[in-house]
Amino acid sequence: MARPSPKHAGNPALASIGKTVRGMRKVNGLSQEELALSTDMDRSYIGGIERGEHNLTVLNLVRIAKVLGTTAGELLARSGV
Amino acid sequence: MARPSPKHAGNPALASIGKTVRGMRKVNGLSQEELALSTDMDRSYIGGIERGEHNLTVLNLVRIAKVLGTTAGELLARSGV
Repeated sequence: MARPSPKHAGNPALASIGKTVRGMRKVNGLSQEELALSTDMDRSYIGGIERGEHNLTVLNLVRIAKVLGTTAGELLARSGV
Repeated sequence: MARPSPKHAGNPALASIGKTVRGMRKVNGLSQEELALSTDMDRSYIGGIERGEHNLTVLNLVRIAKVLGTTAGELLARSGV
């Protein structure tokens, strides 16, 4: 199946959040698959978030932040968003 | 037309964000309609956000925060999210 078009690719806010998620995931010693399992999301969706391709929802952001040991507000603040 | 079921109604994080948006909107002296116009969203959607019924996206949160003179990270932090 073709990869869906990354509608939001290149959005600076989403790109910055993606970098923050990736950095904090590595600091926490988690693989994309481990973060996916812990948040009950697809690994490919986590990958897309880290590439800044997904305009994720607040509740998904909260789930990711929790697994990474922070809050959604702090995660956005670290991303300059 | 029937109002769509508020799927996320009662979610504590969304309820808290909604209260923060409503409070900051009033501090900024804006009506729901004015906030809707400034963010290019429907007034009814803004109303739903303030009632905690919508799992809004990061980019919509950024647009709302900007009009309210803050950042998305600060808006979530003020909401305890």
